[in-house]
Amino acid sequence: MTDLHTSPERRFSFGLPPSPGPDPTRDSAPLLIEPWDFVHGLAEIGAWGVAIHDDELFPPGATPQERHSVLGKFQAALDNTGVAVSMFATDLSRHPVFAGGAFTAPDGDVRRCALQKSLRAVELGAELGAPIHVLNAAHEGIAATAAGTPTEALDRYREAINFLCGRVRDQDYPITFALAPGAGEPTGNAVLPTIGHALAFIEMLDHPDMVGLLPTATLESSQSTYRGVAQAIWSGRLAAIDLNVTQGSAGLKDMFFLVKILEESGYLGPRHFGPRPYRGEYGGDVWDFAAGWMRTYSALAAKVRRFADDPDIQAAVAEAGVRELSESAVGRYSTAEAQQLAGRNFDLDALVENGHQHDRLDRLITDLLLGLR
Amino acid sequence: MTDLHTSPERRFSFGLPPSPGPDPTRDSAPLLIEPWDFVHGLAEIGAWGVAIHDDELFPPGATPQERHSVLGKFQAALDNTGVAVSMFATDLSRHPVFAGGAFTAPDGDVRRCALQKSLRAVELGAELGAPIHVLNAAHEGIAATAAGTPTEALDRYREAINFLCGRVRDQDYPITFALAPGAGEPTGNAVLPTIGHALAFIEMLDHPDMVGLLPTATLESSQSTYRGVAQAIWSGRLAAIDLNVTQGSAGLKDMFFLVKILEESGYLGPRHFGPRPYRGEYGGDVWDFAAGWMRTYSALAAKVRRFADDPDIQAAVAEAGVRELSESAVGRYSTAEAQQLAGRNFDLDALVENGHQHDRLDRLITDLLLGLR
Amino acid sequence: MTDLHTSPERRFSFGLPPSPGPDPTRDSAPLLIEPWDFVHGLAEIGAWGVAIHDDELFPPGATPQERHSVLGKFQAALDNTGVAVSMFATDLSRHPVFAGGAFTAPDGDVRRCALQKSLRAVELGAELGAPIHVLNAAHEGIAATAAGTPTEALDRYREAINFLCGRVRDQDYPITFALAPGAGEPTGNAVLPTIGHALAFIEMLDHPDMVGLLPTATLESSQSTYRGVAQAIWSGRLAAIDLNVTQGSAGLKDMFFLVKILEESGYLGPRHFGPRPYRGEYGGDVWDFAAGWMRTYSALAAKVRRFADDPDIQAAVAEAGVRELSESAVGRYSTAEAQQLAGRNFDLDALVENGHQHDRLDRLITDLLLGLR
Amino acid sequence: MTDLHTSPERRFSFGLPPSPGPDPTRDSAPLLIEPWDFVHGLAEIGAWGVAIHDDELFPPGATPQERHSVLGKFQAALDNTGVAVSMFATDLSRHPVFAGGAFTAPDGDVRRCALQKSLRAVELGAELGAPIHVLNAAHEGIAATAAGTPTEALDRYREAINFLCGRVRDQDYPITFALAPGAGEPTGNAVLPTIGHALAFIEMLDHPDMVGLLPTATLESSQSTYRGVAQAIWSGRLAAIDLNVTQGSAGLKDMFFLVKILEESGYLGPRHFGPRPYRGEYGGDVWDFAAGWMRTYSALAAKVRRFADDPDIQAAVAEAGVRELSESAVGRYSTAEAQQLAGRNFDLDALVENGHQHDRLDRLITDLLLGLR
Repeated sequence: MTDLHTSPERRFSFGLPPSPGPDPTRDSAPLLIEPWDFVHGLAEIGAWGVAIHDDELFPPGATPQERHSVLGKFQAALDNTGVAVSMFATDLSRHPVFAGGAFTAPDGDVRRCALQKSLRAVELGAELGAPIHVLNAAHEGIAATAAGTPTEALDRYREAINFLCGRVRDQDYPITFALAPGAGEPTGNAVLPTIGHALAFIEMLDHPDMVGLLPTATLESSQSTYRGVAQAIWSGRLAAIDLNVTQGSAGLKDMFFLVKILEESGYLGPRHFGPRPYRGEYGGDVWDFAAGWMRTYSALAAKVRRFADDPDIQAAVAEAGVRELSESAVGRYSTAEAQQLAGRNFDLDALVENGHQHDRLDRLITDLLLGLR
Repeated sequence: MTDLHTSPERRFSFGLPPSPGPDPTRDSAPLLIEPWDFVHGLAEIGAWGVAIHDDELFPPGATPQERHSVLGKFQAALDNTGVAVSMFATDLSRHPVFAGGAFTAPDGDVRRCALQKSLRAVELGAELGAPIHVLNAAHEGIAATAAGTPTEALDRYREAINFLCGRVRDQDYPITFALAPGAGEPTGNAVLPTIGHALAFIEMLDHPDMVGLLPTATLESSQSTYRGVAQAIWSGRLAAIDLNVTQGSAGLKDMFFLVKILEESGYLGPRHFGPRPYRGEYGGDVWDFAAGWMRTYSALAAKVRRFADDPDIQAAVAEAGVRELSESAVGRYSTAEAQQLAGRNFDLDALVENGHQHDRLDRLITDLLLGLR
Repeated sequence: MTDLHTSPERRFSFGLPPSPGPDPTRDSAPLLIEPWDFVHGLAEIGAWGVAIHDDELFPPGATPQERHSVLGKFQAALDNTGVAVSMFATDLSRHPVFAGGAFTAPDGDVRRCALQKSLRAVELGAELGAPIHVLNAAHEGIAATAAGTPTEALDRYREAINFLCGRVRDQDYPITFALAPGAGEPTGNAVLPTIGHALAFIEMLDHPDMVGLLPTATLESSQSTYRGVAQAIWSGRLAAIDLNVTQGSAGLKDMFFLVKILEESGYLGPRHFGPRPYRGEYGGDVWDFAAGWMRTYSALAAKVRRFADDPDIQAAVAEAGVRELSESAVGRYSTAEAQQLAGRNFDLDALVENGHQHDRLDRLITDLLLGLR
Repeated sequence: MTDLHTSPERRFSFGLPPSPGPDPTRDSAPLLIEPWDFVHGLAEIGAWGVAIHDDELFPPGATPQERHSVLGKFQAALDNTGVAVSMFATDLSRHPVFAGGAFTAPDGDVRRCALQKSLRAVELGAELGAPIHVLNAAHEGIAATAAGTPTEALDRYREAINFLCGRVRDQDYPITFALAPGAGEPTGNAVLPTIGHALAFIEMLDHPDMVGLLPTATLESSQSTYRGVAQAIWSGRLAAIDLNVTQGSAGLKDMFFLVKILEESGYLGPRHFGPRPYRGEYGGDVWDFAAGWMRTYSALAAKVRRFADDPDIQAAVAEAGVRELSESAVGRYSTAEAQQLAGRNFDLDALVENGHQHDRLDRLITDLLLGLR
């Protein structure tokens, strides 16, 4: 079934299954699976990469010897399997010190401590050859609306990202930052609640070209995710994407359109799936989960190709005016072009359209997805 | 009660009350009140400005004589009262030809027709001295998700805005565009669903500095509006704001924080209230409505000042760490600064904080709002 | 492909496509298609029934002769085709007099007028053999929160329904009422916002057994619809269902579970699809729409059967504990049973479960839906 | 300021502030404050009652001696202060064994174990004189949509409640159950997601009159809470209410209307406030919190009285048609009444109303709340 097989070109990436137990650090809650074993497992099912964060690799208080040993085993697994580190991240949410934010915590020392932790993680990610370093904004913000203005949180967040970009330039690391927006805790005001806010924020940085987006499909509504991913692509800022929508409200149609825009855009970054098991299901069968997602993605990608090849669907697409929408209405502004436009006569009533047949197009896509065409 | 009186400095602006009846153009649904009478009424209650759009001033098919006559009466009312035109807009949503969007309609002729209408309205707004021209994105987008990709809608929308900016530069009009984001109909995908998306979009224009934001308080959740307005201020892009939240879910606390950030930011643009009457209430008593909003805004602004003066509140603000948040954690990046940070020792557990007393601050604000302090 | 063909047993029912134009009555906005032509069309595609409301059949001011003529043509179409009237409704939302509600309008005369209109429609529905009369609660409620308490609106709504039930009993019509909950306009407080509220309301009526539920799949979130339909079935109160989710947020998985619970419950009422075209698409190709829905429903029903037959899926279902959930934990209360339970020893830690493999079940359903198994 | 003082008549009730730390049982996470100290503190600030659950009083594995000692100290505190136990609850959510629900868990032993724990807690609550026993449905339901049908979860939940009611009748405890609806985890399908669903569920029990509602103001939107509380009152089923909306989206206007309907309905149950501190704020200053809520509630209740006394507000209320809404439109059904109604002539167009002035009423309430009238 060549149509459905997975391939390194799609850069399927997976994160470690979460540990059982509520404890914030690895020290007290052992990983379900060691990172090197996870890498070997990913290789077996044909995945391309592994995403990992500093505290998953070793607990905060690890000795240099412990760190050296862990790194050696992890690097060996990567070398032996060819699995890449797709993304490296600094964990700035699980330790209670970050309960009120990390780069946006009121206490300057908490912010400095978050920055120090990040500098070390950036170095570590570079060592491991991770092309992307994740900045998770979902736990950054202001706890109570009255306890600070969002403009100050934005100032603090920018300051931190600028500092990290400065470091990467200074050290010449081949790293792009991937900013993951979202609204978690603290809850008063998230620093970057949606893809839109994060895209706007990036433009205000010292080095916008060093920072892209990492949308997570479950953090906004499915329509909002699709729309946001599209604008990130349009802005040239899609660095990575987390597609795990298992428990989200996204349906197969939403997932299809997300796959469609990724496939059609020529997107080359990781197609990541961060395991988010059901409550009480620590880890589940992570291989089943991972192989299942690659299979589902590939099945949807095959349907994207069939969408392009099916004459009935393409007729409905034409009816919907999709192709006209891709054409400019006017050239760039010039006085002449404006005068020409001013002189035209439009019969508004005649232009009122009826007959895009959107319902028909919807139905054809439903049939396509259900395997009926 | 000098504390509550309204003043021109606050630039309170109002829109015409909507006409009764479902018909799309003025031709068939007469205005409740003529624009010049509205201007005189606004002057009497002490409002600063009037916002109006092309089709409210005269119906699409008006003859040159009719237009001349209407314009004369309207300009005379402005001259006699000193009321300003706060914002001028092109109506691109009511005519059925725009049911599938205007600048983002599939049909190129609909887009050209929308652009022609806008060019005329921009000229008219300039004639009337309106410093702001409104671009309403809430009715722009794609009808069915399959009927076009959001990237193409963004292309078309950018093309139109760039064209209009070109016109304003060419004609040297003293006009700023105010982009009003939102998700109305068509519903498949709004071109700019939230303030965040619109802020990001602006940076991709040929002339970002000619285009600001016009957030409407009812179009996002109240928390989202507040957060978005803050980022618009932070980005230097808040051009205007529509504060009418009568029927929205926004409560007085939300409204208080919105007023607070506007007052504290030194915002000088219009504080606009677009009448959105209850169903079946065509217009209501618009003077009561307008005077009421000026009074409520001013009362909240007085409470903002009391917030700053109340020692208990300020003590709670200090406890919450608000002031620390306004201070940098690090300077700009330098190798030395990074090394110094790397060398610091942080005791994470000691930094875990407990005692911001956010509940206490919330309660003090409740008391402030209820008039109990 | 016998698996997908439609059959009268499924009682597929359709409503007339909406008229173009914003005008509230048929008088000024002609129907897209005459009711008798619609009936003939439905017969051709193999649908079972037609749902219609009084104002679609004839405009409010029709003369007795006009009514007689229309009824004759409509009845003849029914007789010739065997198409049933699945549901008859009173339109209590389109005329401006009902802008503030019908049975819950503040003005007693508006309420009496709504009741009079309903009495006539109930009689007409009975004449046409419709087994169900629809009561649409989505436009009932209080305009502004301060303008009346919800308890009074509930009183008024109950009074009206009791009156109508009294009529049906008096006249011995073979009619069940179907209450359609929802929150439309007026917006302050809907009288019956969700399926849950409506189910609770029914129990407070004089004749609860005369009134069932008519959930509409687009009016609540898809998860909420599914949950609500389940409770309506559980309470023995599912009278009918409107399944048109074309433009709603419901995905194929949601739709699958809705079909699954309908098929498995032995539900015998109409599976109705009320055409809700895209904006600007007056009617679209209604036959394409109707045939498409019957086909999609049947395809999903076939997948429901495959769900029951697929050994992998059934193994995952067993793993998930579905079968245990259908078994009682205790008998009915008795002192002996309570004492026996009190004496048991449970090892809580041993009972903590891990391994329901919900992710696996989710993936299998995805495969089933995509036609991969 | 006698207007604001609190009184036992209002039955203000508070729950223990939550323990720090993520651990599920008291054993490992010590309470912030011992129950007897909490009772003394409540007495000092003038609160009426304390709500507590079994695991807060003593950890699951407590020895009989430990239980005896704790109960003695707690009862002594109650006796010495006159503070009542407003509500007693069984904790069925914190232990990991209940991760997949308690009365609705797939495993029958988990369900039996939950029932055993509840039987003991009911006995204990009776001993302590608590008139209400809380059943928290927010953590009951189905983990994954495919892992069980909601009808089965409803069966299991009904079975458990019927059993507990049987016990209370058998033992003749003077106890009413208060069912707290909501959708927490497990997340696939909550057994009773909203007040409406819970009201409908109660009617299907063996002894509906033994079970009332305990709505929690933060679990639904503020409009939905208000609407639901109203229907619970209307159905005679409001047993208790949790009013803590500190961090919810509810504004002061929402809170005002909630207080208004409680005050006007003659509701006599507990006005409870369950401390829900900000993240990282274990407990905060609970006395400040509790005294603050009593003060805010009382201030709002005073504004409810002023609402009734203010002539301008009452004029606006009259204009809004509130009083007409409280009057019947028709009597009970009789053939004569129906015929009389059939014979009436209504001029629909004349009945179309305009002028309820809802905006004016909204503004007056805003002024009332802000302390401006």
